Amino acid sequence: MLEKMFNPESVAVIGASHVKGKVGRAVLDNLLNGYEGKIYPINPNAAEIEGLKCYKTVLDVPGPIDLAVIVIPSKLVPQAVRECGEKGIKYIVIISAGFKEVGVEGARLENEVKEIARSYNMRIVGPNCLGVLNTHTRCNASFAKKMPPSGNVSIITQSGALGTAILDWSEATGVGFDSFVSLGNKADLNEIDFMEAWKDDENTKVILAYLEGITDGKRFIEVAREVSKVKPIIVVKSGRTSAGARAVSSHTGSLAGSDAAYDAAFMQSGVIRAETMYEFFDMAGGFSGQPIPKGDRIAIITNAGGPGILATDSCERYGLRLATLSKETVDALKTTLPAAASFYNPVDVLGDASAHLYRFALETVVKDSGVDGILVLATPQAMTDPVAIAEVICDIKKQTDKPILPCFIGGVVMDEGVQVLKRHGLYNYDDPARAAYAMRMMARYNRISQRVYPQPRQFDVDREKVRGIIDRARKMGITVLGLEALPVLEAYGIPTLKYKMAAGVSDALQAAREIGYPVVMKIVSPDIVHKSDVGGVRVGIGSDEELENAYNKMMKDVSLAAPRCRISGVLIQQMATGGKEVILGMNKDPQFGPLIMFGLGGIYVEVLKDVQFRVAPLNEKDAMGMIYGIKTHQMLEGTRGEKPSDIEKLAELLERLSQLVTDFPDILEMDINPVKVYEKGKGCLALDVRMAISPK
Amino acid sequence: MLEKMFNPESVAVIGASHVKGKVGRAVLDNLLNGYEGKIYPINPNAAEIEGLKCYKTVLDVPGPIDLAVIVIPSKLVPQAVRECGEKGIKYIVIISAGFKEVGVEGARLENEVKEIARSYNMRIVGPNCLGVLNTHTRCNASFAKKMPPSGNVSIITQSGALGTAILDWSEATGVGFDSFVSLGNKADLNEIDFMEAWKDDENTKVILAYLEGITDGKRFIEVAREVSKVKPIIVVKSGRTSAGARAVSSHTGSLAGSDAAYDAAFMQSGVIRAETMYEFFDMAGGFSGQPIPKGDRIAIITNAGGPGILATDSCERYGLRLATLSKETVDALKTTLPAAASFYNPVDVLGDASAHLYRFALETVVKDSGVDGILVLATPQAMTDPVAIAEVICDIKKQTDKPILPCFIGGVVMDEGVQVLKRHGLYNYDDPARAAYAMRMMARYNRISQRVYPQPRQFDVDREKVRGIIDRARKMGITVLGLEALPVLEAYGIPTLKYKMAAGVSDALQAAREIGYPVVMKIVSPDIVHKSDVGGVRVGIGSDEELENAYNKMMKDVSLAAPRCRISGVLIQQMATGGKEVILGMNKDPQFGPLIMFGLGGIYVEVLKDVQFRVAPLNEKDAMGMIYGIKTHQMLEGTRGEKPSDIEKLAELLERLSQLVTDFPDILEMDINPVKVYEKGKGCLALDVRMAISPK
Repeated sequence: MLEKMFNPESVAVIGASHVKGKVGRAVLDNLLNGYEGKIYPINPNAAEIEGLKCYKTVLDVPGPIDLAVIVIPSKLVPQAVRECGEKGIKYIVIISAGFKEVGVEGARLENEVKEIARSYNMRIVGPNCLGVLNTHTRCNASFAKKMPPSGNVSIITQSGALGTAILDWSEATGVGFDSFVSLGNKADLNEIDFMEAWKDDENTKVILAYLEGITDGKRFIEVAREVSKVKPIIVVKSGRTSAGARAVSSHTGSLAGSDAAYDAAFMQSGVIRAETMYEFFDMAGGFSGQPIPKGDRIAIITNAGGPGILATDSCERYGLRLATLSKETVDALKTTLPAAASFYNPVDVLGDASAHLYRFALETVVKDSGVDGILVLATPQAMTDPVAIAEVICDIKKQTDKPILPCFIGGVVMDEGVQVLKRHGLYNYDDPARAAYAMRMMARYNRISQRVYPQPRQFDVDREKVRGIIDRARKMGITVLGLEALPVLEAYGIPTLKYKMAAGVSDALQAAREIGYPVVMKIVSPDIVHKSDVGGVRVGIGSDEELENAYNKMMKDVSLAAPRCRISGVLIQQMATGGKEVILGMNKDPQFGPLIMFGLGGIYVEVLKDVQFRVAPLNEKDAMGMIYGIKTHQMLEGTRGEKPSDIEKLAELLERLSQLVTDFPDILEMDINPVKVYEKGKGCLALDVRMAISPK
Repeated sequence: MLEKMFNPESVAVIGASHVKGKVGRAVLDNLLNGYEGKIYPINPNAAEIEGLKCYKTVLDVPGPIDLAVIVIPSKLVPQAVRECGEKGIKYIVIISAGFKEVGVEGARLENEVKEIARSYNMRIVGPNCLGVLNTHTRCNASFAKKMPPSGNVSIITQSGALGTAILDWSEATGVGFDSFVSLGNKADLNEIDFMEAWKDDENTKVILAYLEGITDGKRFIEVAREVSKVKPIIVVKSGRTSAGARAVSSHTGSLAGSDAAYDAAFMQSGVIRAETMYEFFDMAGGFSGQPIPKGDRIAIITNAGGPGILATDSCERYGLRLATLSKETVDALKTTLPAAASFYNPVDVLGDASAHLYRFALETVVKDSGVDGILVLATPQAMTDPVAIAEVICDIKKQTDKPILPCFIGGVVMDEGVQVLKRHGLYNYDDPARAAYAMRMMARYNRISQRVYPQPRQFDVDREKVRGIIDRARKMGITVLGLEALPVLEAYGIPTLKYKMAAGVSDALQAAREIGYPVVMKIVSPDIVHKSDVGGVRVGIGSDEELENAYNKMMKDVSLAAPRCRISGVLIQQMATGGKEVILGMNKDPQFGPLIMFGLGGIYVEVLKDVQFRVAPLNEKDAMGMIYGIKTHQMLEGTRGEKPSDIEKLAELLERLSQLVTDFPDILEMDINPVKVYEKGKGCLALDVRMAISPK
């Protein structure tokens, strides 16, 4: 899939140019620098460029063409694309700018190009991009200044400038690339297509992506789940914060989406998110050159105490465990390390340690079955030989399937050693914190690669009932439902506190007697959102007499506070006692669709913002993950002698809510607040609900 | 102070050596490389070393000596130090190892050296260190391989290896040093002495320290408060996590102390803590080469959208504000930047921007009075000229007192520009996140430099009463007091819920009648810590009859559950209603002494660990800072229509507790749990207390 894009037998450069400094020249030069297929410059005003015969259009080229690179002014692009179609070219890279990013006219042009490509069944990268390249075929169909070193990282970038910076970084650190794609406006091919294409690509071990938005949330999750089981996907998604999101929308036309949705989607699909460029690079370096650790028990070898402590601090901060070395390992270390060395983790081989001693320590520790990965620290001391130590690491790395992350600290003196590591494809971390971070993410990926994604459960529900409620509401012009939506919950098996609707006072009295005192009375009106504010809620009604009084008072209060509202009646509800209050909710994300929210009620949501989001549909693991994902989950597990809450049932409620909002795209927003969770085995009850639906 | 240490007129090297690779040779070579004072090699077995006349002992040197560097085996050090004393040398750097760090015998030797130095009024650095150096006097009295570039950063390090790495890093980044001190075992001079010495040192603009422990907590806070007002102190304190702390104690003899105490002490004394080496370096780079921003409103100038968004994200993550550019600024930018540029913050000068355009944008933005600092991003694009852009930055930097942090992204291509920055003393951040981090810390330092530290308030208290209670308890062999310590609180003006001690049932009845039902009854026993567990607490006692029954049942229950405990009687206490529960506490830190704790009661402390610590004595700002420092402080400010709590009174209680534990070092631990805080103006009441005292 997309194979001919990176490994074409022939490439046409539409807009190839003689002129130094022109993009059409840069692309041609890049291709001439090592690509072994046929190159056809296309330019109506030249007979020959750089010694190659030049053609007026692709239609004039005698042989077949696999890939066309377009670098002509945007207005001329549709015609050129049409000609590519006629010629039977399947892949086009449009480097030219002047499309969606410049406004309405550009967007129209982009659509035209898309239509033409679709009609000829062609696939397009761009427009408004840097191009694509592959280091193994040496097909550099981009205007990037340099070909990066060859390697096993493939990268997608939505920012050309960051793409260039990343290529430059690649040269500096020695982390090599396989394929590089600058996405540009994503008129056709997007990040998902490339992830999918690289899933089974032997040359790609790690997939990196810099994204500002995702084109198709659902498909992204689907594809990323498959791909992330096979190889790590590391993403920097910018526009995380609100100010950042503003910058995105002024930068490209892409919708930033809510960041909670991105976090949830990445989590649910095994995608690893980097926050900064350094995290991005540090993970790329680790995943590219090292095996995946089987666990999180880390050993540290160092030639100085201080950095050893810093590494230990960092491991703990990132949730790695400091390995406890076995007695055999400690005893073995004692045979050869000097008496003043530290034989426990961190293993301190001391400042005057030779490369030989490093080798002994590393060989010994790597064999310990209680160690999943190793950080090897080296600081420049009197006797330190960085080159020899680097060679030891490269050597032992070949004999083990455990990651050994080198951490040569110190700028200039250690550089010779760092160069040796680099030549062997090993990325150096010059701060133990960065090495610990990378190791933690690699350990996390170990779990991701083993994940299973259960199918969401399908509960037996009453769809027709919900359909009816929504349709009736719409007919009445109602788009926000309050208590009237309680039957929606019931239809989907979300139990509610016993209640009855009542049209008048005698109805209400009968309802209260059936339910049993004490009861709560709530006003039911399509026009009232905050019932309490208008005197529309009365709790603890204990008798017929109290109820009559409460009813009359409520009618008076509400008609005073909200004179023109339509009153459908009152709702008589059982008094809730005991249980813990939680909130279940849903809002729609433009990229990912329904996003389910969960949190503990009151202060926990309002002050601590201790909530979890997941993209629907939820499976059982997602639902459990939401509940255990909040910081205050212990509140539900039972603290201070309390019994644990019915977490299983609560998880089921989340799944049922997920099924409801997935079945009915008409539902735009939903708050089930509060839901009472009772102790284990006793279930949950929804007390109130608010549901917004689309007008049609 | 310590001036002759860094600027001596003459230096003796005791243990100077011919032999390449020996420390005694390395120190001599380092001094010979630029130091212009007199150098005296001391070695009984040589007549001359490196062309310098050699002496048997310092006593044989004809002229005066300001500084002696000792590099002989540890056993010989006491004698050499004594000779230095006789000679009248005031400063000694003991590089030799083999002291406290190797065990009991070494510690004895170290003490001997200390005693000798004290008797001659000499000051010592080390032993077991790398040495000291100063780049301005070029006095390199260390065995570090290289002299770092000259600059305005002075550094203290407790790890020689990290010291070497930092010197090496200095060369790589161009951040220059004034003085460098490797502390070693800190037998005499420690981090505080150097902070103090550098406070008024004109050559030092920034103080860095890598510490594993602090020698004298109280003095550290005192000195750091003074120094941090004048220049920033940046500290990496390792051994943060529990595993890290283990590594500290196996590494040096220094006590790690509790990390909460370090965090509190740093916060209270204006010391900025770095978590990683990169944070450490990034701050050093920023503080060293840039002015301090007057606020946190940051502008971003970029030649590409992607990095601009990343920078925006990072600014928000670190709590910086994205500056809103004035209309004048935006209009001015519009006159010259291309139409497709972004004129708002981040200002995008576009990928083909010349250095000239950068200059225009930077000059315009720097003038905006709504901008406190600027990040200038440059990525390698087709037209990018890193050298020219770097020159623009260096140039405009001279005309402004606002920090301009350069952020040249991309390894190899941007390097020429980075070198230009470096030559002008400007540190480059190759990840926008790192620049944003440094800027945030610089903005934070702006507030630190303006801080005032009010004197702790002294309340009118009854010391004698507390003295008496403690003495009586000790006489009885009691070291943990429960309710018996309520009078201690009262003596220090911490109000308690109305209570009476009762020796028997008739006493209890009378007490209850006086207090007024309902009451609570609690067992009073020096042997019972968890009263509830033995049936020793009864709440809601409403009448004489209930009280009699409760009394009898409690005596039975307690004697069954804790048969051998001594029962002093019961405590009858008023029933507490309303208010919010908080916890006040104190525990002793080995380095910093009494550490005051504050948190909201129950779940907030137990599950969320939402607590604040401060080192006593507390001033009013400290106390308020503790209350507003917890994540859930809104609980006390009034949420969901509740009235705000009496925060002023609560702060006073914290200060009173601080005065109590400061007055009585006998108190080792204290929990006042719970304290009820009532609404504003209605004060607080302590309900229960637990106090541990030292046996004598």
